[in-house]
Amino acid sequence: MKTVVVTNPPRADAEEVDALAAHGVATVHESVGRTGYLGPGIRPVHLGSRIGGTAVTVLSWPGDNLMIHVAVEQCRPGDILVVTTTSPSTDGMFGELLATGLQYRGVRGLVINAGVRDVAELHAMGFPVWSAAVSAQGTVKATPGAVNVPVSIAGQAIHPGDAILADDDGVMCVPREDVPEALRAAQARAAREEATRAAFRAGELGLDHYGMRARLLELGIEYVTYADHTEHGE
Amino acid sequence: MKTVVVTNPPRADAEEVDALAAHGVATVHESVGRTGYLGPGIRPVHLGSRIGGTAVTVLSWPGDNLMIHVAVEQCRPGDILVVTTTSPSTDGMFGELLATGLQYRGVRGLVINAGVRDVAELHAMGFPVWSAAVSAQGTVKATPGAVNVPVSIAGQAIHPGDAILADDDGVMCVPREDVPEALRAAQARAAREEATRAAFRAGELGLDHYGMRARLLELGIEYVTYADHTEHGE
Amino acid sequence: MKTVVVTNPPRADAEEVDALAAHGVATVHESVGRTGYLGPGIRPVHLGSRIGGTAVTVLSWPGDNLMIHVAVEQCRPGDILVVTTTSPSTDGMFGELLATGLQYRGVRGLVINAGVRDVAELHAMGFPVWSAAVSAQGTVKATPGAVNVPVSIAGQAIHPGDAILADDDGVMCVPREDVPEALRAAQARAAREEATRAAFRAGELGLDHYGMRARLLELGIEYVTYADHTEHGE
Amino acid sequence: MKTVVVTNPPRADAEEVDALAAHGVATVHESVGRTGYLGPGIRPVHLGSRIGGTAVTVLSWPGDNLMIHVAVEQCRPGDILVVTTTSPSTDGMFGELLATGLQYRGVRGLVINAGVRDVAELHAMGFPVWSAAVSAQGTVKATPGAVNVPVSIAGQAIHPGDAILADDDGVMCVPREDVPEALRAAQARAAREEATRAAFRAGELGLDHYGMRARLLELGIEYVTYADHTEHGE
Amino acid sequence: MKTVVVTNPPRADAEEVDALAAHGVATVHESVGRTGYLGPGIRPVHLGSRIGGTAVTVLSWPGDNLMIHVAVEQCRPGDILVVTTTSPSTDGMFGELLATGLQYRGVRGLVINAGVRDVAELHAMGFPVWSAAVSAQGTVKATPGAVNVPVSIAGQAIHPGDAILADDDGVMCVPREDVPEALRAAQARAAREEATRAAFRAGELGLDHYGMRARLLELGIEYVTYADHTEHGE
Amino acid sequence: MKTVVVTNPPRADAEEVDALAAHGVATVHESVGRTGYLGPGIRPVHLGSRIGGTAVTVLSWPGDNLMIHVAVEQCRPGDILVVTTTSPSTDGMFGELLATGLQYRGVRGLVINAGVRDVAELHAMGFPVWSAAVSAQGTVKATPGAVNVPVSIAGQAIHPGDAILADDDGVMCVPREDVPEALRAAQARAAREEATRAAFRAGELGLDHYGMRARLLELGIEYVTYADHTEHGE
Repeated sequence: MKTVVVTNPPRADAEEVDALAAHGVATVHESVGRTGYLGPGIRPVHLGSRIGGTAVTVLSWPGDNLMIHVAVEQCRPGDILVVTTTSPSTDGMFGELLATGLQYRGVRGLVINAGVRDVAELHAMGFPVWSAAVSAQGTVKATPGAVNVPVSIAGQAIHPGDAILADDDGVMCVPREDVPEALRAAQARAAREEATRAAFRAGELGLDHYGMRARLLELGIEYVTYADHTEHGE
Repeated sequence: MKTVVVTNPPRADAEEVDALAAHGVATVHESVGRTGYLGPGIRPVHLGSRIGGTAVTVLSWPGDNLMIHVAVEQCRPGDILVVTTTSPSTDGMFGELLATGLQYRGVRGLVINAGVRDVAELHAMGFPVWSAAVSAQGTVKATPGAVNVPVSIAGQAIHPGDAILADDDGVMCVPREDVPEALRAAQARAAREEATRAAFRAGELGLDHYGMRARLLELGIEYVTYADHTEHGE
Repeated sequence: MKTVVVTNPPRADAEEVDALAAHGVATVHESVGRTGYLGPGIRPVHLGSRIGGTAVTVLSWPGDNLMIHVAVEQCRPGDILVVTTTSPSTDGMFGELLATGLQYRGVRGLVINAGVRDVAELHAMGFPVWSAAVSAQGTVKATPGAVNVPVSIAGQAIHPGDAILADDDGVMCVPREDVPEALRAAQARAAREEATRAAFRAGELGLDHYGMRARLLELGIEYVTYADHTEHGE
Repeated sequence: MKTVVVTNPPRADAEEVDALAAHGVATVHESVGRTGYLGPGIRPVHLGSRIGGTAVTVLSWPGDNLMIHVAVEQCRPGDILVVTTTSPSTDGMFGELLATGLQYRGVRGLVINAGVRDVAELHAMGFPVWSAAVSAQGTVKATPGAVNVPVSIAGQAIHPGDAILADDDGVMCVPREDVPEALRAAQARAAREEATRAAFRAGELGLDHYGMRARLLELGIEYVTYADHTEHGE
Repeated sequence: MKTVVVTNPPRADAEEVDALAAHGVATVHESVGRTGYLGPGIRPVHLGSRIGGTAVTVLSWPGDNLMIHVAVEQCRPGDILVVTTTSPSTDGMFGELLATGLQYRGVRGLVINAGVRDVAELHAMGFPVWSAAVSAQGTVKATPGAVNVPVSIAGQAIHPGDAILADDDGVMCVPREDVPEALRAAQARAAREEATRAAFRAGELGLDHYGMRARLLELGIEYVTYADHTEHGE
Repeated sequence: MKTVVVTNPPRADAEEVDALAAHGVATVHESVGRTGYLGPGIRPVHLGSRIGGTAVTVLSWPGDNLMIHVAVEQCRPGDILVVTTTSPSTDGMFGELLATGLQYRGVRGLVINAGVRDVAELHAMGFPVWSAAVSAQGTVKATPGAVNVPVSIAGQAIHPGDAILADDDGVMCVPREDVPEALRAAQARAAREEATRAAFRAGELGLDHYGMRARLLELGIEYVTYADHTEHGE
């Protein structure tokens, strides 16, 4: 690993990221062709937040939060800190003191593929966190890593400056250069979803709304009454 | 797997299911001889609900929610949709659009041995969900499965029309034909529990209330003072 | 395993335990040299509690809660019940009836390396629980174990009478004889943290506050502009 | 759970089961429509066996092997013992003494959704085992369960007398009444596979052999040269 | 954690440890009342070894093998190195160079609650390893820990000098002072097991050999023919 | 996800890859600064192989092996097929028929972040496999994915044409352009390791060979005799 701190990466446009985040992770994920989701292993510590921001990435040694301290200096208003480790770790690498420093700099939240602590305090101060674990286990500051290099969580690449979207469904990344197109796609999808929602509220079935009945036949799905089905026993 | 949709299975009696659900999963589970619990892997996304209903079952391919769309049409007021997959999956197979359709039909909630998404929206619309995961990862509609066939989660068989009970302790299934007897047993147990609760509130010990002291002797459990115990080292 | 119930172990001083608990698990864990944490696998069922107390320990057979019933009698005001099993288990060994008995005796909460049930009721009655699982699956009362023997969870030894601290960050143990020193250390650390917090709120960086910049150089961490870094590809 | 021992269930035909087992688990699983596989969590302790037999089923309490002792008496030559527990357990419920008893009765192997021990001895005596764990942790004989009732592992129902097939790919169950049809299907599939194997050995591509190229077009899969693809960045 | 290296702990008697190890982990575990087993998570990398020795214990920071290097110097012929970490880690903390150093000093093997690497080379040089993982991921040498302090794996305490037994069933610890009694108990058990084995080889059932039939009646286990059982449906 | 097949990516030099592979995964991983390891979750199905080759990458839908069939055509002698899925899956996506086709084309093995089947047959035909699971569960061919796009496993990016090294320690990736430098580094490290091995065989300690004793002092590691240490209790 190159022990490097990359400074001033270009960020996705803040206004576009905000507009994108408002659509929610699940809708945007669908809009961009189902890519970029950081998996069900990264969960909000408290339910009820929805944020968007631009990634400042950190690659740390397990059990060591040196590089998070280094990364604070690289953060700007509108950023979200995204931390992962070189091998799996649940240690509590981040707590309310680091959050205090980040909040001063306008950072909107933390996404960490490891553990956090002080979660009651973080919640009280309004700093939302998505993590792989909660753990009081502290860390050392001994081994170098990298800041603002490309990292990967759950098979998804994250580059510094990419848009990060996070809500109760988890976290996703939209590459910086794809944000404008993702926003258009999300707006179009949201409109379609609104129409579907209205249809479903009025009692229309998805089978009809999406025109799926012919496909069911092709796939050989049979309808059988319960009486006929149980006659052959199971 | 037979790609079949079984229509109109008989349901457990709605009133009895409601009465049973009111006792809570843990009490009913004890009453029926500790069977039918879908395991600690199926958890409520939000704490605070307690529902009962009749099962409409879905067996889906992993990463594919075609059969959930098919199942909506088979649902009636008082049902709970119960979904599992042919192999383990955390994908978000269900969201608020499907819930909108189900709510229209009077379905009370979802139990899914896979992932859900739009969990903030589901909570806002009052549609409770018990799942194995939360995931924004969407699914395709390509491969057939089955609706209203017997399925199994955590070693427990679930037939269409069985009673499903769900609360903060998780989810259980009571076979349709066993519901009346389960209700009687739950009522009897609840009465006994109330008596025990009163005794415990008044300071009686379980050892005395349940008459366990003789059994402890038989089992060879010794009482030793701390001083005597530490003398021999530990 | 010796099937023994050890009576009247000495407890850590209640006032000191309370003072220690007020500092929170993460701060105390740091103060005592990062030891005693029961790991990220033991989580509060509901967020929002912070308690301290003295350990009454239970070692049970998996799927069997006989020894918890035995342990109730050994509890005193200010205790916390700490339960583990001889092999991994998620079964719901503890519910609101046991909690009713413990609450009568002034027990402050439960820490269990297994499952609990009746979690809605436990929350309603104000009895906080930290557990490895929630499960409605009930247990038998057939096989003996031990009460107030040393146990170990996540590699940390717990002796009866030790201080147990629990909050949203999880659970830790401070050996009885170390409590006074831990309290002094926690108070000192809390003061230092308050100073750091003030500095961070005023915009000082951790790199400067902790004097880490020289160490970064020693470790060979390089700063590179994004433009220079991407020129060589990634 | 009914604490019952069901005697003399009808078994699948031994000769047909043997013929079916010879095709291997993966081939038979495909032949019967991809159903009945007990999942990747049940693995052979030692690689290199392939057996078939008829199920004698056991449902045990976790940490308790009483019912395995009871089940031995119900076994006949050509059987395979299939054990699961009422909640997840890794304890070593089975070892070489039980295997000695089973071998005397002509039982061909063990499938257990829990732990085994004495695995070196079991291998030396030629008694193959598929299990969820290896563990020296012993069990008690205190709590009743059931023998020859339907059980379920990884979502698949197993009835006493069903055909059990096990090899290095894991374990599957074919319902007793489906064995003749499964055998015909497996034989047909094996013949097709042999033809495919010959074609592939001669260099034919699956895309051509299975006629998949048109479908790729329909699905919108594009072919792009590396040069064109990297021009737009990734 | 105290960063200490404890020198020259007393060891269990080598001859007794060897005699104990010959009985195998499962038999000894039963003999000593089912205690001391390090759980199913610690597995041999290659099947086929059975060793005993005296523990030199190491407590390391995750991702850091400094203390293993320190521990080598503390090892003597007949020792087994026992390593755990302050929080869960799969990193490959140990490889063939360390094993070369240990083999020179007469160390018999490694037990590690983390990862190892060079496993092909370790096997070739005849140095057996039991571990929680295999991983090529290397570690740093930056953070202190402890050697020859009590550690705990899977809830079992291990003191330096205790007897460690390891075979294909996993690893167990017998406290130094209990080794003579454990040896007597294991010899007695082995004799009983030999008698049972002979009886089972001759066709006697465990139900009869252990005199369990009366207990089955007490427990309410019923015997029902398949025909009677299926009449009521399942 | 773009459903694209990228053709003819440049490959790392075959001779250099072979030379690199001969050093083994653990040694190369150290040489290149501890990066590129695909984690302890990808394991050889059978121990005993060591191969190197160039990556042909596949990104598949879970439960769907369509894109593996597509990828076969893109393979050349010296390649290793590297497969991952858009969300976690254990299904058996690959078996001996696909291996037959790959072997014809000179492919050296498979690395798959999902399941394989026919593992006995794969071993018999000398086609080595590293996988996340073994599973007989078959897959459909319904949903498109991508071939020869960058993928990521365990946080490590893999581009088509990169060097893949695999042995009993797992799998790693060396970026194509880094292979020459990695080879030089591995050769240098192997020479150093040989010197260390010789020193250790002659009884030198790592503490002396690596000159670590001064560092231990700096870190505050104390040496205490067992007698002194136990006097204060533990």
